[in-house]
Amino acid sequence: MIQDFIRQRRSVRKYLARPVDIEIIHSILEAGMSAPSAGNQRPWDFIVVTDHDVIERMSKTGPNSLPAKDAPVVILITGDTSRERYKGYWPVDCAAATENMLLEITRLGLGAVWLGVHPVAERKEYLQNLFQLPSAIHPFAMISLGYTDVDLNNERESRYDMSRVHYNRW
Amino acid sequence: MIQDFIRQRRSVRKYLARPVDIEIIHSILEAGMSAPSAGNQRPWDFIVVTDHDVIERMSKTGPNSLPAKDAPVVILITGDTSRERYKGYWPVDCAAATENMLLEITRLGLGAVWLGVHPVAERKEYLQNLFQLPSAIHPFAMISLGYTDVDLNNERESRYDMSRVHYNRW
Repeated sequence: MIQDFIRQRRSVRKYLARPVDIEIIHSILEAGMSAPSAGNQRPWDFIVVTDHDVIERMSKTGPNSLPAKDAPVVILITGDTSRERYKGYWPVDCAAATENMLLEITRLGLGAVWLGVHPVAERKEYLQNLFQLPSAIHPFAMISLGYTDVDLNNERESRYDMSRVHYNRW
Repeated sequence: MIQDFIRQRRSVRKYLARPVDIEIIHSILEAGMSAPSAGNQRPWDFIVVTDHDVIERMSKTGPNSLPAKDAPVVILITGDTSRERYKGYWPVDCAAATENMLLEITRLGLGAVWLGVHPVAERKEYLQNLFQLPSAIHPFAMISLGYTDVDLNNERESRYDMSRVHYNRW
């Protein structure tokens, strides 16, 4: 089987200091923007942060965001409700983009973790203040990423659970 | 470059009558269950529908679900709020699983489209009634899928949009 980064993907919270080239970042963002969205409304923006002081402050968004602290790059995904033609779908669209980015990061041999923000109000407000976001721009999630010495190629056991599968009826 | 199904994925709404083997369905579901979720809460279930009468009724969920009508398989992804340890994250988790499934379908050479349900109340109620779902089980989205004669291997132009990318600040 060809490289199976859907099954290889795992949450990686330890990163090397090695910087990440802009071509890698571009590829990750392009993967995000290749995700489907409701009626192709593409409601997202991406704030790519490499400034260590800003990353330090991002890592204090919530108890789950601590792993960002030592990452060379953190990407904040935001949803723009002014672009919404299908009301209420922006978090769904942002989630698909975020997952695409995690898979692309895996494909490129780096490690990353999804740091949930939406729908926790305190986390959203914290980031809205930190980045002085316009009112239509809603923080959705952060991805902290970098090269890692965690072994990403080892076999994962299947996460298939037959008790979650139903045929033709509930 | 190896097969790049993140960029190849597209919405496919026309399917051949050819049946889809259970091994293919298993692989798609396993990809869905390989998605990350908040605190690994894995709040999803999957209803795999091949019964044509049920598919016919699913295709009437909303104006966007019409393409399901001629699909040999439709999968309904649901979120179980009784499994939620991180309140409000179930739609985010279900979206990541749904995107993984679309990518796996692309990898396997089939075509599919994401039919949005959540957060539209009428669509959720319609499916809750159709499948007589327990109250903790919330319809999230449907995927209609099948073999297709749409050309899935042609080069896609990049969907990268530099106006959506910000560095270190908004």
